[in-house]
Amino acid sequence: MSAEPVEVTVEKRSRYDVESLLAVAVEVFGERGYDGTSMDDLARAAGITKSSFYHHVKGKEELLRRSLDRALGGLFAALEAAEAGEGAAVRRLEELLRGSVALLVAELPHVTLLLRVRGNTETERSALARRREFDHRVTALVAAAEAEGDLRISADPALAARLVFGLINSLTEWYRPGGELGEAALADAVVELALSGLRVRPAE
Amino acid sequence: MSAEPVEVTVEKRSRYDVESLLAVAVEVFGERGYDGTSMDDLARAAGITKSSFYHHVKGKEELLRRSLDRALGGLFAALEAAEAGEGAAVRRLEELLRGSVALLVAELPHVTLLLRVRGNTETERSALARRREFDHRVTALVAAAEAEGDLRISADPALAARLVFGLINSLTEWYRPGGELGEAALADAVVELALSGLRVRPAE
Repeated sequence: MSAEPVEVTVEKRSRYDVESLLAVAVEVFGERGYDGTSMDDLARAAGITKSSFYHHVKGKEELLRRSLDRALGGLFAALEAAEAGEGAAVRRLEELLRGSVALLVAELPHVTLLLRVRGNTETERSALARRREFDHRVTALVAAAEAEGDLRISADPALAARLVFGLINSLTEWYRPGGELGEAALADAVVELALSGLRVRPAE
Repeated sequence: MSAEPVEVTVEKRSRYDVESLLAVAVEVFGERGYDGTSMDDLARAAGITKSSFYHHVKGKEELLRRSLDRALGGLFAALEAAEAGEGAAVRRLEELLRGSVALLVAELPHVTLLLRVRGNTETERSALARRREFDHRVTALVAAAEAEGDLRISADPALAARLVFGLINSLTEWYRPGGELGEAALADAVVELALSGLRVRPAE
C-alpha cells in the first residue's frame, strides 16, 4: 500500500469522501443488517483499506448516525414546516404528507435504514426516541385537524397518524426513483388515498 | 442422549410437533434472517437435538415453505372469497381488506416473514410469484370497482392496490394481537382510511 504513488492516494481520498462512504455503508447495512456488518465488510465494499476508511470516519456507528440523522433531519424539517404553517391543520397535514413522500424519494436508502432500526446501540435508541417524538407531533396535528372539524376518522388520532405513516413508509418496499411514476404523482396518490379514500361516495 | 429414558423422548416428541417447530423457526428466521439461520440455530432455539429436529422436518426450507404457504393460503382464501362474492366490486374489495387484516392478525409471524422474502431460494421465488399473482388479482378487483363508478382514485388501479396493501402490510411493523386495539376496530380503521379517507369534505 505504501508503494502506491502519492497521486493515487490523493485521487482515492478525493473519490472517497464521507458522503460516498456513507452511501456504500447504507447499502451494506441494508443487505447484511447493521449488527452483521463489520468495518472489514465496509472497507471491502468500498474497495479501500480499513485504515483509509478510518481516515474518514470513526467507525460504523458514526455512519449509522449520519444516515439516521439524514432521514430524521428531513422528516423533522417537513414536520416543522407543517407546524409553523398558517391555515387549516388539515392543509398543513397534507403538506406534511407531501414533504414526507418527497423526503422518502430523495433519501430512500436512509429512510429505509431508519425504518429497520431496532435499538441495539445508543445511536439506534436515540433514533427510536426521535421517531416516537415525530409520531406524537404528527398525532397532535391530526388531532388539531379533527378539532377543526375537518377529519372524520372515528379512530383516535394516534391510530390515524400511524396508519397514514404506515402507508408512506410502505413505499420503501417497492418505490424506486427514476421509474415511470414520478415523485409528484406518487405524492398525489398518497394524499388522495389518505385524505379522500378510494371510494366516490360514502357507504350506503 | 441415548441414555435418556424412553418416557422423556416420548414427551419431547409430543411437545415438539411440526406446528411448534414451525413457530420456533419463524421466530428465529425473523431475528437472524432466513439465509443467516442454520439447522443448528433452529435446534438450539427449540432446545432439541438436530437429529430430533430432522425427525419432524426435512430441513429449514420445508419450514420456510410451510410458513409462506400459511400466509399465502390465507391471503388467497380471502381473495377468492371476494372474487366469488356477489354485489358491487367495491363491497367485495372491502371484504378483501377485512379478510386480509384478519389473516394478518391471525398469522402475524407468517405474514411478516412473507413480506421479507427476497427470492434467494426456489421456495422464496415461488412465494414471490404468488404475491405477484395476488397483486394482479387485487388490481383486477380495484379496476372492476372503478369500472362500476365506485372509485375515484385518479391513479391507476395497480397503484391503488399497491398503496392499500402497503397500508395493510405496514401493520406488521407495529400491530400486536392481544393489546387494546382489537382486530375488528383495526379492520374498521383500515377500511375507513382506504375507502373514505380522513377528510370530511373534498378539498375546496
